[in-house]
Amino acid sequence: MKRQIFCIVALSGVAAAAVSGPVEEQIRIRQSAYAFIGWNTGRIKSQLDHPESYNQQQIVAAANAIAAVANSGLGSLFGPGSDKGTGWRPTKVRPEFFQKPDEAKAAALAFNKEANELARIAATGTPAEIKTQFSTLSETCKSCHSKFRERD
Amino acid sequence: MKRQIFCIVALSGVAAAAVSGPVEEQIRIRQSAYAFIGWNTGRIKSQLDHPESYNQQQIVAAANAIAAVANSGLGSLFGPGSDKGTGWRPTKVRPEFFQKPDEAKAAALAFNKEANELARIAATGTPAEIKTQFSTLSETCKSCHSKFRERD
Repeated sequence: MKRQIFCIVALSGVAAAAVSGPVEEQIRIRQSAYAFIGWNTGRIKSQLDHPESYNQQQIVAAANAIAAVANSGLGSLFGPGSDKGTGWRPTKVRPEFFQKPDEAKAAALAFNKEANELARIAATGTPAEIKTQFSTLSETCKSCHSKFRERD
Repeated sequence: MKRQIFCIVALSGVAAAAVSGPVEEQIRIRQSAYAFIGWNTGRIKSQLDHPESYNQQQIVAAANAIAAVANSGLGSLFGPGSDKGTGWRPTKVRPEFFQKPDEAKAAALAFNKEANELARIAATGTPAEIKTQFSTLSETCKSCHSKFRERD
């Protein structure tokens, strides 16, 4: 179990000094982080779906926000005992996330990589280039959700 | 009222194409954004309070996250009708936020400015320099909360 914890903590690529606070707080903050990411992915999708009102500044702001959250050290919010519990609502993380730390780590690193790549491309890319990278990022979200998150 | 809405939407310094979704969704996302900011300010404070385990990489990640959230366009999450309502929980925004849009805008811009300055200083600054700027940023939080947020 101890080994699993350290793997999870290291997920984000930022060395976490310690797990972040009580279990309920960890769950509440990680739910907040992913809700905020979801808002930003929704805004990018909306921009890409409406070329008549395309605003690259909006996409840049949203992509930078996603990348900064991805790079912030979310791994420390998946500490021991946080496989169950209630933050804003009961956690939807599946036991497999904690049981398969190598897969969980790979999923997190893939998300981080593609989020940073989207932020890079958003700054100067064409709508087509941004759309391609946004699809790549979205695949990492979907893949992780299908493995490690309970369905709504 | 219409003028107020446009002032609020412009708060973040990023021109918002439109208000973001239903009222409950706006409230839920802004609560998520500020909860996530709070986690990151807490992590910076913890680093500054514990020089024996000081980790500047953690501070950089947290400061970048705060700045990116500040720059993301939060103003679009304070649309008309969102002075009341429930996201994760009932909103704590006070009516004054919507009644005094110039003051609200000034508070938001002050937060954004100091958040960006903290991210800049975190990258290369000394702990003392970071501490000073973190205090300046914290004052903008406290000032806005005392004017525009119901107490816990």
